[in-house]
Amino acid sequence: MNFSSRADRLQPSAIRNKLFSNPDLITFAAGRPSEQVFPEDVLKTILHTIAEEDLSKAVQYSETEGFADFRRNIADICMKKAGVECSRDNIQLTSGSQQGIYFSTEIFVNEGDVVFVEDPSYTGALSIFKETGAKVIGIEMDEEGIRPDLLREYAKIYPNAKMIYTIPDFQNPTGSLMSEKRRKELVETAYELGIPIVEDSPYRELSYDSQPLPALKAYDRYGIVIYLGSFSKTLCPGLRIGWVCADEKIIQKMNQLKSTTDLQCASMSEMIINSFLKKQNWDTHIKEVQDFYRTKRDRLVESLEKYMPSCVRYSIPSGGFFVWLQLPERMRDTDLLDLAAKKYGVAFITGSSFFPEEGQDHFIRLSYSSVDINQIDEGIKRLAEAIRERNVL
Amino acid sequence: MNFSSRADRLQPSAIRNKLFSNPDLITFAAGRPSEQVFPEDVLKTILHTIAEEDLSKAVQYSETEGFADFRRNIADICMKKAGVECSRDNIQLTSGSQQGIYFSTEIFVNEGDVVFVEDPSYTGALSIFKETGAKVIGIEMDEEGIRPDLLREYAKIYPNAKMIYTIPDFQNPTGSLMSEKRRKELVETAYELGIPIVEDSPYRELSYDSQPLPALKAYDRYGIVIYLGSFSKTLCPGLRIGWVCADEKIIQKMNQLKSTTDLQCASMSEMIINSFLKKQNWDTHIKEVQDFYRTKRDRLVESLEKYMPSCVRYSIPSGGFFVWLQLPERMRDTDLLDLAAKKYGVAFITGSSFFPEEGQDHFIRLSYSSVDINQIDEGIKRLAEAIRERNVL
Repeated sequence: MNFSSRADRLQPSAIRNKLFSNPDLITFAAGRPSEQVFPEDVLKTILHTIAEEDLSKAVQYSETEGFADFRRNIADICMKKAGVECSRDNIQLTSGSQQGIYFSTEIFVNEGDVVFVEDPSYTGALSIFKETGAKVIGIEMDEEGIRPDLLREYAKIYPNAKMIYTIPDFQNPTGSLMSEKRRKELVETAYELGIPIVEDSPYRELSYDSQPLPALKAYDRYGIVIYLGSFSKTLCPGLRIGWVCADEKIIQKMNQLKSTTDLQCASMSEMIINSFLKKQNWDTHIKEVQDFYRTKRDRLVESLEKYMPSCVRYSIPSGGFFVWLQLPERMRDTDLLDLAAKKYGVAFITGSSFFPEEGQDHFIRLSYSSVDINQIDEGIKRLAEAIRERNVL
Repeated sequence: MNFSSRADRLQPSAIRNKLFSNPDLITFAAGRPSEQVFPEDVLKTILHTIAEEDLSKAVQYSETEGFADFRRNIADICMKKAGVECSRDNIQLTSGSQQGIYFSTEIFVNEGDVVFVEDPSYTGALSIFKETGAKVIGIEMDEEGIRPDLLREYAKIYPNAKMIYTIPDFQNPTGSLMSEKRRKELVETAYELGIPIVEDSPYRELSYDSQPLPALKAYDRYGIVIYLGSFSKTLCPGLRIGWVCADEKIIQKMNQLKSTTDLQCASMSEMIINSFLKKQNWDTHIKEVQDFYRTKRDRLVESLEKYMPSCVRYSIPSGGFFVWLQLPERMRDTDLLDLAAKKYGVAFITGSSFFPEEGQDHFIRLSYSSVDINQIDEGIKRLAEAIRERNVL
């Protein structure tokens, strides 16, 4: 039996790897949120209420775009906080922002077209670009974010560039934050080049040292930014609810694509999250989430400072879930993972999965979101030992 | 801003049309299940239990393929009833069988390749084939189903045929049932031609006059049938849970595609349906559902016999949700819908949306699944009046 070219380009997920569910490992691998910060009591009440009052609606078909009331709340609460004025007609629900990345690629990119990404970038997005047959060009970042001067240069080399994919907030995998100035600059550059920006924004509100920055979409006077939102990191991921916020003409295409590929999100999931938005103050909730992860970030940074040999370089992230470690040049990420997991019982994601090109093999991504806070010190100690052992080889 | 070729080929859904939610209409349009047959009490208990005992699991990430226990129950209960012996490793969950059709197309069909379908076929599948750039060839059916002799002929004309898409049970839109003999014959023909069969099977168990027939997959000694199952019509559609049952090599591709496009189904939805499978006897449940829809089917048939002018032809379906009406040749389906909806307050789906080729414009599809049983007589009376009025023109 023959598979299609798209199927031939599919690959196993670097992040949904079963190795990492081994309970003997201390794992800094998966970027999953911690269950400890799920607002269980509120969700419990919501579930009981839906069971008693709204059950048939929650298990029946609803609208492809999502319930109107839910989309209005996303526009009025979530998008407003991102600095974006919009209406429910600018919102299309997606099954997580993963589907938002997939839909954007389907809508803007033909096989062989070019997508510009930060170098490195989210491995799950790279898998989408690969499957759809897009050519991915990694653009170097400086301390403010992806470099617009390089974008301009590459746009000359690749006139078939159709999309700029960026994670401006606490980027996956580097943890870096795009400056406000750069956000404005990037929107202007994209407009000038005529290339839409897909702004993947699951971590924006998880800012621990200062107020979250406005989204790139907040500076978009042209309708050139497609904003991808998600409740996965701020509330819970298992309900699979994200959204696209964009101009109505783009939303119309997203809507038709949703209807074509899977009809709609789960009505039950929509109702649970919409009830949460109506019942709870979103700011208060986000503050709790920030406090929870800030403590973990601090613990991780302490442990890194305590144990890491000086040959390892990293920046302290001011939000999100990730720290990006640069190993000595001759130390291969896969070798280190092998040693660390087998001998020291500690796991992480190899950096090479985040680079569009091969050969960048001396980085690793640590996620502190779901590891038990009391295991962080021990985990980093083990990792440092593994690094020391490999460094001698 | 330029869209991709795929985006240019997207079209509005013929079945998710907002016209049909007008409360003044008696509508035979949407093939949605009736809320009256949702097992509300059991679902309510399940929801309360999840809220109290399993909440974090239900809102956290789970496995791309679906919970192992759930997949085992699908294999042991649902697939076994379809006559298929398989294990959980042959099951990949999808967000409804709509996503199953999309995934199959992605995995087997390149742009420009040919898909064989029954003529007419499910409009939502045709939209997928159109979006992905497949060429669709409609194959005539006889009273036993799609004709293998024609498949053989067309396979000679189209050596790039990559998929046979069929709805063997109470077909959408015609309501026809493929015979057991034809099922076996079709599997053998597909094997001989080397073209995989995608068996879309949401209505198989909704058989009102006899036992459901075994799935085509039950006769598949070659691994050439990809079976698409769904809980949408037998239990409830709003949780968005369907599945693919296929050989492990195909399941592996489906799994990677699921992980690439939207990571996984909603954990909550999986847990609700899995609890239902564990708590309730599936046979007893299906019997209730069959009894409910049989009564509606009977009422519809009575009304058709009572009111329809003899220029309208139809067959009585022995299961599923649909009756397919052939209008007099000169009566256009869209003209009739316009008159029926505006003047007579009754709606349906125009048959032309179900044909891969244009020009077949004198058929309509009636669905009796969600219309109130007490409105069926009145609705059919109105429709008959509209047909009489147009027939005079």
